[in-house]
Amino acid sequence: MARALTEARAAAARGEVPVGAVIVDEGGRLLAACGNAMRKEKDPTAHAELLAIRAAAKRRGTMRLVDCDIYVTLEPCPMCAYAIGLARLRRLYYGAEDEKCGGVDHGPRIFDSSACHHRPEVYGGIGERESARLLRDFFADRRGRPGRPPAD
Amino acid sequence: MARALTEARAAAARGEVPVGAVIVDEGGRLLAACGNAMRKEKDPTAHAELLAIRAAAKRRGTMRLVDCDIYVTLEPCPMCAYAIGLARLRRLYYGAEDEKCGGVDHGPRIFDSSACHHRPEVYGGIGERESARLLRDFFADRRGRPGRPPAD
Repeated sequence: MARALTEARAAAARGEVPVGAVIVDEGGRLLAACGNAMRKEKDPTAHAELLAIRAAAKRRGTMRLVDCDIYVTLEPCPMCAYAIGLARLRRLYYGAEDEKCGGVDHGPRIFDSSACHHRPEVYGGIGERESARLLRDFFADRRGRPGRPPAD
Repeated sequence: MARALTEARAAAARGEVPVGAVIVDEGGRLLAACGNAMRKEKDPTAHAELLAIRAAAKRRGTMRLVDCDIYVTLEPCPMCAYAIGLARLRRLYYGAEDEKCGGVDHGPRIFDSSACHHRPEVYGGIGERESARLLRDFFADRRGRPGRPPAD
């Protein structure tokens, strides 16, 4: 999760909502580490988790990341949660909860849905304090600069 | 929808589950036309809708496809449905319903969820018969060839 937080900080420095994601294989080796890049890529789907899944799958040469785990600093949204299921990731570790946009323990609770055919083990609250602080500081800073364009 | 069906047929010819998606702007001009490419790209997120959203956003140079519409041959899954909301697409036209993996009128019903902050107008059943036939033929053909690897 430390590496995911580093990616989140780097995202904030680029003006992106600070969220980072890391995927490791069954031996704990790093497959992908990404931060949010929606603004940079002009891509509404460029959430840290989706970028990490695509990078890890490309690196492995397979679209199923069986026995791999994902660490994310924020509870994934429904899009990313369903992508985690599609990728067959083994475990999801996430930091802060997202009451507004989260799709794992809030909103549509994707892994409990009949449309979801793979449920990873889920562990929330990992590195929660630092993850939440990064987000809080980012939005407080943005509110302090009214000329700054919205980041989401 | 005719163009989306063409993309779905092309996907089937590549061994992909036949789903196609098209995005047009407010004047009906084509911004993106894509078929499923999970197998080809080794990417579990390479659903037709996500590829079309990314391509259209890149073409427009913005991550919000305001006043644009998406045509998909199959009811979008929860990942793609949420991405449609993130992209602020105006209207979703889809063909066949997907009782197993659909996320619009089945499963988590993403647009009715508290985590979804933009709901497009939704029109189902457009070109449904041909869309469903393509999928039925594809899976019947696959069952007839046991050596063929799974496509989803």
